[in-house]
Amino acid sequence: MELVEKHRSHNGSQEVYKHFSETTNCIMRFAVYIPDSSKDCSLLYFLSGITCNEQNFIQKSGYQQFASKYQVAVIVPDTSPRGEGVPDNEDYRLGCGAGFYLNATVEPWSNNYKMYDYVTRDLPNLISNNFQFSKSKIGIFGHSMGGGGAIQCALKNDLYKSVSAFSPICSLHKSTFSREIFINYLDSNSDALNKYDPITLIKNSKKKFESIKIDVGLSDNFLKDLYIDDFIQACDESEQKLLVSKYPGYDHGYFFINSFIEDHIKYHATILKNKQ
Amino acid sequence: MELVEKHRSHNGSQEVYKHFSETTNCIMRFAVYIPDSSKDCSLLYFLSGITCNEQNFIQKSGYQQFASKYQVAVIVPDTSPRGEGVPDNEDYRLGCGAGFYLNATVEPWSNNYKMYDYVTRDLPNLISNNFQFSKSKIGIFGHSMGGGGAIQCALKNDLYKSVSAFSPICSLHKSTFSREIFINYLDSNSDALNKYDPITLIKNSKKKFESIKIDVGLSDNFLKDLYIDDFIQACDESEQKLLVSKYPGYDHGYFFINSFIEDHIKYHATILKNKQ
Repeated sequence: MELVEKHRSHNGSQEVYKHFSETTNCIMRFAVYIPDSSKDCSLLYFLSGITCNEQNFIQKSGYQQFASKYQVAVIVPDTSPRGEGVPDNEDYRLGCGAGFYLNATVEPWSNNYKMYDYVTRDLPNLISNNFQFSKSKIGIFGHSMGGGGAIQCALKNDLYKSVSAFSPICSLHKSTFSREIFINYLDSNSDALNKYDPITLIKNSKKKFESIKIDVGLSDNFLKDLYIDDFIQACDESEQKLLVSKYPGYDHGYFFINSFIEDHIKYHATILKNKQ
Repeated sequence: MELVEKHRSHNGSQEVYKHFSETTNCIMRFAVYIPDSSKDCSLLYFLSGITCNEQNFIQKSGYQQFASKYQVAVIVPDTSPRGEGVPDNEDYRLGCGAGFYLNATVEPWSNNYKMYDYVTRDLPNLISNNFQFSKSKIGIFGHSMGGGGAIQCALKNDLYKSVSAFSPICSLHKSTFSREIFINYLDSNSDALNKYDPITLIKNSKKKFESIKIDVGLSDNFLKDLYIDDFIQACDESEQKLLVSKYPGYDHGYFFINSFIEDHIKYHATILKNKQ
């Protein structure tokens, strides 16, 4: 693990590291915000949306102020494998920047695109071995592709005790945006897709959260393709408590995230405080 | 004046416009944050540093949260003329992105590089004609090149009732970084330089501010070349009250600005509230 950059920020440290991952078979980067006095503090993973790397969230969301205020460390992985030998595609929704937090099973993607294992296993192990954050007070959240990613990771892994999302892609079956892409990564049967589909997972999940928090802007260009109302219905039917806020005028971008980032960090910090 | 982009942000609107300026003889862009209920609200101009356009500050500083909280509108001009026919240079410290808020007198720069007039006259007129912000409660602040720019503009124009800076370039005579550049824009005599030199201006200025606020990080790579201690001494000798904060560990970049942006906006809002 090698330090790439480090900046003092809001009485803490914004750092970026790179390391070789055997899972994705390439050098990966991630960002970490470390509040002063971080020993045993709560830990959040933030999964970014398509086209992002770790820089978008750390530069634009303004989360450091609140990570510091609520004494939470935050890890921001990249959204895909990258670099020499890693397959890519002209479509920005496929390949570098668009790993969708899944384990690809179709070549050539299956050689590197194992972001599900990377995010839920490799990276947590690396963090656990190198930092002194809490091993139990861990939550996950994300935006758009990463919002859906946070929900599917959270439902399948006991590691995460809290989950929230900005403008998540909730249905891989209905969203043309995602379905078109997923058939490149996965065998084209419904079972393969269902493993990563928030709505299918919420219907079938035995794991329940005290609540799931979702914020979305009503001027979001992608709103219709997120299928948030379908997710709301699935949560109702599954008796999964959902806290949804729909904000008039706000769009899909970082100005929206920046406006409500405190609510998310406070939400996680409050839940995680009481976890063993 | 034409709208380029618009995003809802922290109960206000982050907008970007473009317009033709006869002063710089090209199309210019500026950003404006408009809090809800902005009629007669205080107004700040933020001058960015070298290489920036209006996007850096609006995406990275997190200022919207506090512009909203303290009910202040904020205008962020570009740092130079740009586009077809506008001279540029390979050195990032000269030409596009590095207008230094001066009126160039040497060709070819003198055809477009009139950023002093643009920032202190053209842009304020445009804003005054198109928005309903206060015409009197106006302040100016900036970063690095724009920190020095804010100070020199403030000292020479009654328009500005408050001034502050992050990591300003204070001495054009001593800073090799700036002096090398300025002789391209200006006749190479001291008088030309003195018109834009914060230390010379503070020594000769009849205009005094209740205070000038300056923040700087002590891990700033450019610290030695800013000559902030020389500025402190010049203010002492001129009986200009100065509020300086030196922050250990913080560097020159936006993580530093983001960490202390609330202090600056609150500082201006408090002063401007009582101005007629």
